[in-house]
Amino acid sequence: MSKPLVGIIMGSDSDLPVMSAAAQMCEKFGISYEVTVVSAHRTPQRLVNYATKAEKRGLRVIIAGAGGAAHLPGMVASMTALPVVGVPVKGSSLEGMDSLLSIVQMPGGVPVATVAVNGAKNAGILAAQMIGVKSKEVRKKVSAYKKEMLDEVNEKIEKLDKLKYKDYLAQMPKK
Amino acid sequence: MSKPLVGIIMGSDSDLPVMSAAAQMCEKFGISYEVTVVSAHRTPQRLVNYATKAEKRGLRVIIAGAGGAAHLPGMVASMTALPVVGVPVKGSSLEGMDSLLSIVQMPGGVPVATVAVNGAKNAGILAAQMIGVKSKEVRKKVSAYKKEMLDEVNEKIEKLDKLKYKDYLAQMPKK
Amino acid sequence: MSKPLVGIIMGSDSDLPVMSAAAQMCEKFGISYEVTVVSAHRTPQRLVNYATKAEKRGLRVIIAGAGGAAHLPGMVASMTALPVVGVPVKGSSLEGMDSLLSIVQMPGGVPVATVAVNGAKNAGILAAQMIGVKSKEVRKKVSAYKKEMLDEVNEKIEKLDKLKYKDYLAQMPKK
Amino acid sequence: MSKPLVGIIMGSDSDLPVMSAAAQMCEKFGISYEVTVVSAHRTPQRLVNYATKAEKRGLRVIIAGAGGAAHLPGMVASMTALPVVGVPVKGSSLEGMDSLLSIVQMPGGVPVATVAVNGAKNAGILAAQMIGVKSKEVRKKVSAYKKEMLDEVNEKIEKLDKLKYKDYLAQMPKK
Amino acid sequence: MSKPLVGIIMGSDSDLPVMSAAAQMCEKFGISYEVTVVSAHRTPQRLVNYATKAEKRGLRVIIAGAGGAAHLPGMVASMTALPVVGVPVKGSSLEGMDSLLSIVQMPGGVPVATVAVNGAKNAGILAAQMIGVKSKEVRKKVSAYKKEMLDEVNEKIEKLDKLKYKDYLAQMPKK
Amino acid sequence: MSKPLVGIIMGSDSDLPVMSAAAQMCEKFGISYEVTVVSAHRTPQRLVNYATKAEKRGLRVIIAGAGGAAHLPGMVASMTALPVVGVPVKGSSLEGMDSLLSIVQMPGGVPVATVAVNGAKNAGILAAQMIGVKSKEVRKKVSAYKKEMLDEVNEKIEKLDKLKYKDYLAQMPKK
Amino acid sequence: MSKPLVGIIMGSDSDLPVMSAAAQMCEKFGISYEVTVVSAHRTPQRLVNYATKAEKRGLRVIIAGAGGAAHLPGMVASMTALPVVGVPVKGSSLEGMDSLLSIVQMPGGVPVATVAVNGAKNAGILAAQMIGVKSKEVRKKVSAYKKEMLDEVNEKIEKLDKLKYKDYLAQMPKK
Amino acid sequence: MSKPLVGIIMGSDSDLPVMSAAAQMCEKFGISYEVTVVSAHRTPQRLVNYATKAEKRGLRVIIAGAGGAAHLPGMVASMTALPVVGVPVKGSSLEGMDSLLSIVQMPGGVPVATVAVNGAKNAGILAAQMIGVKSKEVRKKVSAYKKEMLDEVNEKIEKLDKLKYKDYLAQMPKK
Repeated sequence: MSKPLVGIIMGSDSDLPVMSAAAQMCEKFGISYEVTVVSAHRTPQRLVNYATKAEKRGLRVIIAGAGGAAHLPGMVASMTALPVVGVPVKGSSLEGMDSLLSIVQMPGGVPVATVAVNGAKNAGILAAQMIGVKSKEVRKKVSAYKKEMLDEVNEKIEKLDKLKYKDYLAQMPKK
Repeated sequence: MSKPLVGIIMGSDSDLPVMSAAAQMCEKFGISYEVTVVSAHRTPQRLVNYATKAEKRGLRVIIAGAGGAAHLPGMVASMTALPVVGVPVKGSSLEGMDSLLSIVQMPGGVPVATVAVNGAKNAGILAAQMIGVKSKEVRKKVSAYKKEMLDEVNEKIEKLDKLKYKDYLAQMPKK
Repeated sequence: MSKPLVGIIMGSDSDLPVMSAAAQMCEKFGISYEVTVVSAHRTPQRLVNYATKAEKRGLRVIIAGAGGAAHLPGMVASMTALPVVGVPVKGSSLEGMDSLLSIVQMPGGVPVATVAVNGAKNAGILAAQMIGVKSKEVRKKVSAYKKEMLDEVNEKIEKLDKLKYKDYLAQMPKK
Repeated sequence: MSKPLVGIIMGSDSDLPVMSAAAQMCEKFGISYEVTVVSAHRTPQRLVNYATKAEKRGLRVIIAGAGGAAHLPGMVASMTALPVVGVPVKGSSLEGMDSLLSIVQMPGGVPVATVAVNGAKNAGILAAQMIGVKSKEVRKKVSAYKKEMLDEVNEKIEKLDKLKYKDYLAQMPKK
Repeated sequence: MSKPLVGIIMGSDSDLPVMSAAAQMCEKFGISYEVTVVSAHRTPQRLVNYATKAEKRGLRVIIAGAGGAAHLPGMVASMTALPVVGVPVKGSSLEGMDSLLSIVQMPGGVPVATVAVNGAKNAGILAAQMIGVKSKEVRKKVSAYKKEMLDEVNEKIEKLDKLKYKDYLAQMPKK
Repeated sequence: MSKPLVGIIMGSDSDLPVMSAAAQMCEKFGISYEVTVVSAHRTPQRLVNYATKAEKRGLRVIIAGAGGAAHLPGMVASMTALPVVGVPVKGSSLEGMDSLLSIVQMPGGVPVATVAVNGAKNAGILAAQMIGVKSKEVRKKVSAYKKEMLDEVNEKIEKLDKLKYKDYLAQMPKK
Repeated sequence: MSKPLVGIIMGSDSDLPVMSAAAQMCEKFGISYEVTVVSAHRTPQRLVNYATKAEKRGLRVIIAGAGGAAHLPGMVASMTALPVVGVPVKGSSLEGMDSLLSIVQMPGGVPVATVAVNGAKNAGILAAQMIGVKSKEVRKKVSAYKKEMLDEVNEKIEKLDKLKYKDYLAQMPKK
Repeated sequence: MSKPLVGIIMGSDSDLPVMSAAAQMCEKFGISYEVTVVSAHRTPQRLVNYATKAEKRGLRVIIAGAGGAAHLPGMVASMTALPVVGVPVKGSSLEGMDSLLSIVQMPGGVPVATVAVNGAKNAGILAAQMIGVKSKEVRKKVSAYKKEMLDEVNEKIEKLDKLKYKDYLAQMPKK
């Protein structure tokens, strides 16, 4: 893969099952990316290095996911002029509210583009939209993706229309 | 001003005292913008028009602010490939939690880049960072802005160091 | 079934296990209905079509269910003069609080008749009560349903009275 | 005024400054209404009387507002086949969350059509929409009202377009 | 059993697994009780009868448990001079916050003595303490119960002291 | 006044403006009481003394109010067999939620009869109801009080009926 | 003042009115301290310097206050072996819940000793208690302070006892 | 083991699976400790004894964990000059919010050093940091521990770098 445009970082490898969806979306849109662990609290020097060198290394967007008192996205944002997308990862208590507020409630001057709790897929799409600011091609891919979603929904709509809701329910996989 | 790159929209003119900070940041970074009212609930057709034509009109980022059950940012995001920044505006109850959750908890496929409650200033900066994806000049301006914030803080630090905290407190404006 | 009076729509087919209870109540009250998927975020044009043509098509009430940043009920409400019942569907974080606030906290001018988290059954009853505004027959059916609930409870009361609480507990199905 | 179609009740006369907006909307739509106090906790017998006789008296919708542990809407709903609209009134603590949850989280079988905290205006519109189930005339009035809102917003949009945001802000009344 | 002093009621038989703990405590303290279902929303007339006749029937305390928009305790309290103990029962969303606020936030004039979410055991003890206002014997039993709890804890303390925490952990039953 | 039956205590004299309403209700019901400050955190020994000697001193109910991490009601309850009524006092942040949860969520074995945030008036009434367990006279006074509330509401209802809501609103004192 | 043992830092000079209480407590206990501004987001390099050099400079405890997505305490904690006390500062929305969760919910390995929202006074006392780990003299001062609080409360208790609650209320300063 | 410096106490032996992590960290740092049960509500006299004698017995830090209306940490803090670390233990409802607020929101004068919900590991580290105020050796161990965490993370970073995220995910243990 060519030099990465999007850096996907997370506070711990335990966030990877959630955060991998961001990488998958980058792949879908053909945007080069890298995935690594940068812990605001366990590897603070690495955090400084990553954030301050990101722009020079050619990154154009950083996606950062973390749980609990999630400081990674905001701290990266404080040390780069690149846009930072923050993904609140749900932990074992408080239903993700702690991660969400720790990421979104940034003070004036240092924004983090926050997505939903565990919303790594959307973080990947948002990164693509940001790359799309300079790439008509990527914007087209995002539009095509929207069309694709539409088609998928339409297929379901037709199926539901045909089966009626009881049969549709019956053939759904059990959770 | 040249053709706008950033569209700043809000659900009601009563959001303007909050949302004007986004326009001020665009001005600061020399990014062309427009400011208007688009109400998801009162002008739904205008919403469709605004969102579906934004890219063609040359907009590259949309900033959308709304309060309560805030649907404007997410609905715009559903109809454009451009990145959408959402600003939760605090209303008269629930401390802004309703606006925040209505904007940030978007389903997979349709992200909104959410900032803090009443965080329109940061929405403006985030838009600039997104424009910065294609403009080294804007990235430099964002870096310069960070330097400026640093200088302001440093000035306060020196003053606090000189005055000591009691005299510093004494000369602060009363809230 | 005759031309539907109640339109039951949901943001995704994954909401169907919850939303089917609304259809069941319509059946119970002998009110014609339709069930389909309309996604505010993935099929915005379909949303506009559905909402703006609903009244003409003969619908008199719309029930809309959605989760997370749930915009479907409010957006439909913005484009029709029909009453819209909103069902907050609980997602994988925040215990349904996000869906609830996204649906109920509508701005002045565009109400959504919100029921409890996952309260699709009640949405169906509420739709029947609204149809009851013009149909004494339906009002009678709603009254009969209340009587039926009363009888069921009374049966349990008698059984509990007879068995005493320990034996009653013993014969209850385990969760 | 002719025999009332909409009953507007509240738990205390201290709720009247909030609840009067519901009456105003009924007036706007030309729907006959009555306004009174029925306290679930202080006048329980009156509650029973009001609820059980409402349908016979010709009422077709009941709007009930209350604060704190707000039981009035749900209790009325338990004793009538008419649709009940609930208005959570914000009290002196907890930001209205107590009233909202006490009204919206009704158990299966007994719905309350809940609107936003202090959302009495919307309760009035919702009542009109329910009356609209049987009255094309009222549905037309609701549509006209939506058009009116649209015109008001459009006027503001034009003014904002003409003045630009700084002058618009300058001429707004201070809060 | 003699004429009941404590009435234990609940909104639904599905609350019985939680509420039975209240009955067990009454048994422990030798206080006569009755257990039945009274639904504020499904059996409103029964609610009125139960509440208004409770004192005459010899009841001295009423324990009422309910979930969601829990109106039973407050409504009973509005129709009797007896003290009412409210037990918020946790439902399938919102972690019991809805039940708690619906029970505890009663308006001035009509108190409900609220215990913890699912705290039926404590409701039974509280009822005993209330009966203890007139019965020195019951007060002694409550004191004895406190002593018993103390002994149980002391036994555990000694065991933990002897085993040390690792062995103690090892012999604990897995959840 | 005769030997007090109800002890009204609070964590700080700053709680007195809220807690005095409990004393007023005791006066209204002719129940002897005492008012003092017992701070769980600042006077822990006094707390032990107060709680352990309360029953012997003739108290039959203790009302305890506190704010923030409100430990006073629960700690008193742990050291007496008397029923303890807890009043969560709203502080300068978190809207009283901290006080409420600190008081109501007591572990099994040690109940606190919790009332609404700042609900000291209801604490006084609840204490009277508890005294009413042994005193028919007090139960009658509580019933009379309910009648009195009813009369007050009825007076307002008549006035509202006569004036209609607009004139009623006009003559209400401004907040 | 001698070389500081306690470093009191805050994210912005606007936090000083809250944070000055920490300095006052250090003064009270005769513990040397310094007060300065270190912004995690605006002066990240200064943050690194401050945290990594604190131990060498002789500091033994760091008190850090911040609001919103409050990262300062946690980030300092990640870069020093000294104990860090975190003070959540209440902002203009969400009642301080955002600051609290951003500070307290730290991941395993990097604790922050969190105090109440706006609890800077307690942060100062906690720092003194930590210094007390090595200084019997400071422990004595903390004990003396507790005695002093006790005396103050006792004085109020006596006054309340003498004046009775109505006169006590009457002489309290109005808020 | 020598005379304990750190006392680890909890409200119930059911908290031991959470609280044992604090003991493990003390062991790691070679700090003597003791583990026992002290229930604020079930063994109040033992609480008084433990707290008032802790300093004399040689303890220098107390770690206290409890759930629900968690009073143990604050009550111990009220009776000792030693620093007290509070661990909110998550219960069966409200996601640990009750324990957190009951511990952290202490009034002025009596701090509790609060860590995250179920954050007993961090409580152990914080205690070590406090002991570190007088022991350079312990400070070094804490620094070494940070280095160790860094090494662990670095190992994972290298592995992730080598395997790429898909293979890394594939070899992670399933939850």
